[in-house]
Amino acid sequence: MLQNSPIKVIGTTREDCAGYAADAYARVNGIGAVCVTYCVGGLSVSNSIAGAYAEKSPVVVLTGSPGMKERINDPMLHHKVRHFSTQKEIFEKITAASVVLDDPEIAFRQIDETLAACMRLKRPVYIELPRDMVDVVPRFPNQITKITEVSNRHALKEALSETVALLNRAKKPVILADVEVHRYGLSKELVQLVNKTGLPVAATILGKSVISEKHPQYLGVYEGAMGHSEVQKAVETSDCLLMLGTFMTDMNLGVYTANLDQSRAIEATSEKIQISHHRYTDILLKDYVQGLLKSPIRKRKITLKKPRASKAPLKATRKPMTVRYLFSRVNEFLEDDMAVVSDVGDCLFGSIDLVIHRKTEFLAPAYYTSMGFGVPAGLGAQVANPKLRSLIIVGDGAFQMTGTELSTIGRLGLNPIILLLNNHGYTTERLILEGPFNDIAEWSYENMPQLVGNGWGCSVRTEIEFDQSLKAALKNKRSFSLLNIFLDKMDHSPALSRLGANLAAKLGKKNKK
Amino acid sequence: MLQNSPIKVIGTTREDCAGYAADAYARVNGIGAVCVTYCVGGLSVSNSIAGAYAEKSPVVVLTGSPGMKERINDPMLHHKVRHFSTQKEIFEKITAASVVLDDPEIAFRQIDETLAACMRLKRPVYIELPRDMVDVVPRFPNQITKITEVSNRHALKEALSETVALLNRAKKPVILADVEVHRYGLSKELVQLVNKTGLPVAATILGKSVISEKHPQYLGVYEGAMGHSEVQKAVETSDCLLMLGTFMTDMNLGVYTANLDQSRAIEATSEKIQISHHRYTDILLKDYVQGLLKSPIRKRKITLKKPRASKAPLKATRKPMTVRYLFSRVNEFLEDDMAVVSDVGDCLFGSIDLVIHRKTEFLAPAYYTSMGFGVPAGLGAQVANPKLRSLIIVGDGAFQMTGTELSTIGRLGLNPIILLLNNHGYTTERLILEGPFNDIAEWSYENMPQLVGNGWGCSVRTEIEFDQSLKAALKNKRSFSLLNIFLDKMDHSPALSRLGANLAAKLGKKNKK
Repeated sequence: MLQNSPIKVIGTTREDCAGYAADAYARVNGIGAVCVTYCVGGLSVSNSIAGAYAEKSPVVVLTGSPGMKERINDPMLHHKVRHFSTQKEIFEKITAASVVLDDPEIAFRQIDETLAACMRLKRPVYIELPRDMVDVVPRFPNQITKITEVSNRHALKEALSETVALLNRAKKPVILADVEVHRYGLSKELVQLVNKTGLPVAATILGKSVISEKHPQYLGVYEGAMGHSEVQKAVETSDCLLMLGTFMTDMNLGVYTANLDQSRAIEATSEKIQISHHRYTDILLKDYVQGLLKSPIRKRKITLKKPRASKAPLKATRKPMTVRYLFSRVNEFLEDDMAVVSDVGDCLFGSIDLVIHRKTEFLAPAYYTSMGFGVPAGLGAQVANPKLRSLIIVGDGAFQMTGTELSTIGRLGLNPIILLLNNHGYTTERLILEGPFNDIAEWSYENMPQLVGNGWGCSVRTEIEFDQSLKAALKNKRSFSLLNIFLDKMDHSPALSRLGANLAAKLGKKNKK
Repeated sequence: MLQNSPIKVIGTTREDCAGYAADAYARVNGIGAVCVTYCVGGLSVSNSIAGAYAEKSPVVVLTGSPGMKERINDPMLHHKVRHFSTQKEIFEKITAASVVLDDPEIAFRQIDETLAACMRLKRPVYIELPRDMVDVVPRFPNQITKITEVSNRHALKEALSETVALLNRAKKPVILADVEVHRYGLSKELVQLVNKTGLPVAATILGKSVISEKHPQYLGVYEGAMGHSEVQKAVETSDCLLMLGTFMTDMNLGVYTANLDQSRAIEATSEKIQISHHRYTDILLKDYVQGLLKSPIRKRKITLKKPRASKAPLKATRKPMTVRYLFSRVNEFLEDDMAVVSDVGDCLFGSIDLVIHRKTEFLAPAYYTSMGFGVPAGLGAQVANPKLRSLIIVGDGAFQMTGTELSTIGRLGLNPIILLLNNHGYTTERLILEGPFNDIAEWSYENMPQLVGNGWGCSVRTEIEFDQSLKAALKNKRSFSLLNIFLDKMDHSPALSRLGANLAAKLGKKNKK
């Protein structure tokens, strides 16, 4: 039935990869869906869906299940774990709404309500269809359920006038934009607000690329002490910090190296508008942001010190590749219409310094930080928008988890570029606690095309080889290109260095107690 | 701390593989353990653990989690999904016992009780250790909790005397042995009982290898109409069927083609002893089986018609490989001290005809039927018992899910043989409903060694090539050997043919309603 529907079905090698791909698809297109088999498939996708829940990505999980008539007397059907409801019970924990379509009279309303929750909360939902309910026709016609949320207009008016007064009174107001601006489709409004007010704007790592990083008022990624000190100073010394769609995660806060003063902050999210220490709970984020655009906020020109763009050496040398060289060089090569998809670990931290262009998306599991997101998410992003080309940045450990999804990328004839940061194990962990448990097998990653029957691969050991290979990859528009980039096992980005030191100190402190 | 403990830590490429490996380890050794990171790791292992739950394999899931002191005010720490308790709540659904060690005064007792539940119920348990509780010392010394279960001796006496009377009165008593005989360590007792009584014995597919298939009284695998008709007849026409440690799953019952009469059956499991339509609930399986050994059951000689052993053609030809040839030939090559590890699909159905030798284990997810079990389970079996050599039978679809675990197999220098039944997609599904969704990318599986840097691979297209490659693989004791066996995409075992027809008929019947 799916095959004959307008929905394009893409089979992946594994369910968790399908989940990551659907998550990336949702981030690019506004909603995504994944369809799985009962339990063996559903539980296999639970981690990806948990990630989508944590990072507010609206993915619809569709699952089959045993027929309602087959459940009588509770027989032991294959794929059943404990009860027939076990899968549903698990997905209740990691979705915003979940439903079993076991009653035809309410099924259509349930579908409407579940999809509405998905769009409203930007979180995954779960729809289970018992296999004997597929063709059932309800006795009474379905009435489409329309669910429209509205702001309390008195609260909205009060919050807006308070905001305007605070912004106009402040000497160094700054905007900090995060992921919800993107999720709730408010990126255009953000640019308009920035242009209208003249205020400087920073982004979090989870919200990176929510505004073009080429915008003249853009400061950079704020991430507490992990980010650049200029951005940290601008954000933390602001006397009126307007936080839009922010997610106060430890990663966004630079693993708690952030020092934000709530008394001087306005935090506007889908869940609340908080000004100093009081909050409004019945205002839609969209109404608030659009309201700001119509409010009398005075325009000014605030010039703050920006971080220096790290410049790549003019000429590549025969020196071994380093993380620092890699990211500075990638910056020069980044093209418009490219989606930068980062896995976790140093890929993510190094990416802080990448300058994302106007039409470029930046996708990363920057809060849930589940390894293995990169390759399948690169697939999902490119399927969501065929004009995008994915630049996938992934570590060797993460690649061993889900890298075989290049098989599907190859089958579909997609052409992402994979920068595989081969640091010979779990380098992020090495910086916290070193031991043989951080070692992994050394694969010849450049041979992936020989396995999956598609693509182009090479290994890269020096700066010159990197430049040459990256150029060749950019030219190769017909298949994926994989660069196995050899790095010293302790080499890492400056941001990771700061994180590692920070975590090690915390662990040390805890252990001494 | 693990690294410095007597426990050997083996890192796998992915958590689900670690789960399958631990499950196989537990099946061979009696208990296994898997250690994962909070949520991103835990949820990734949930499907493997659900399989261990469904098939009663005692695996201990150890997980770290955020410190209790870090949870105050419910901050957004990376890896958190919704609440700090989300992971625990999910594992409650798929384990027999679960505990968070957040109170040092009861932690040791909790550990004792949780491990006791694991051993008693032969099902996974969950132990979560918040990271600030690792070094905490309780104020009062721990008292070891001993939990000993005993049978109600009056009930035991009554059940035994009833059983003996029924067996002695019957004309064609037959034993049907299943997986719990293995899990509860009663394999020796089963052989003694079979020898003492002279009764014929069959096994289920989940219980296959619970008794040596070379035993003269062994009939074969009973699986309703999916198994051999001789075994079906023997079991279903018995006037006293003694079912030991049985699991009445749809797979064991040949997808409900079984026709067992409860009035003529005695079903003894860890959960109950059921005779005809009444049951005893307070008898331990072990006491019951050992009780039977001491009971006056009369010995006789019952000769029933056995299925003909399928004979391989004397001489291999240049004809293309077929599933039928493959399994008949493997039978001849099976060595003692070999663990046959089967994935699902036609691997499993074809395996019905394999004759498992005395010291051979047969491992398969024959109830939960989760694809991808094979390769990582082969790893677990061989780690559990280094004297075993795994013969892994896996389809191409399942291999694409977890086949990269050959990386770990290579790193440990293990030497399993992998028979990859390459039927170019999901053949089991093709027999139910054909469509492009059953196609997968065609990998050059024989090139796996070039990717993971270890092992020997080859492709096999004819009977002659199969014989030669299998011989070479048996000789290659130093690394894994992978045979990429090309099969026609519709070729399959007779058992699968019967299953496909059965499921298609059921689906058709349902759809017509």
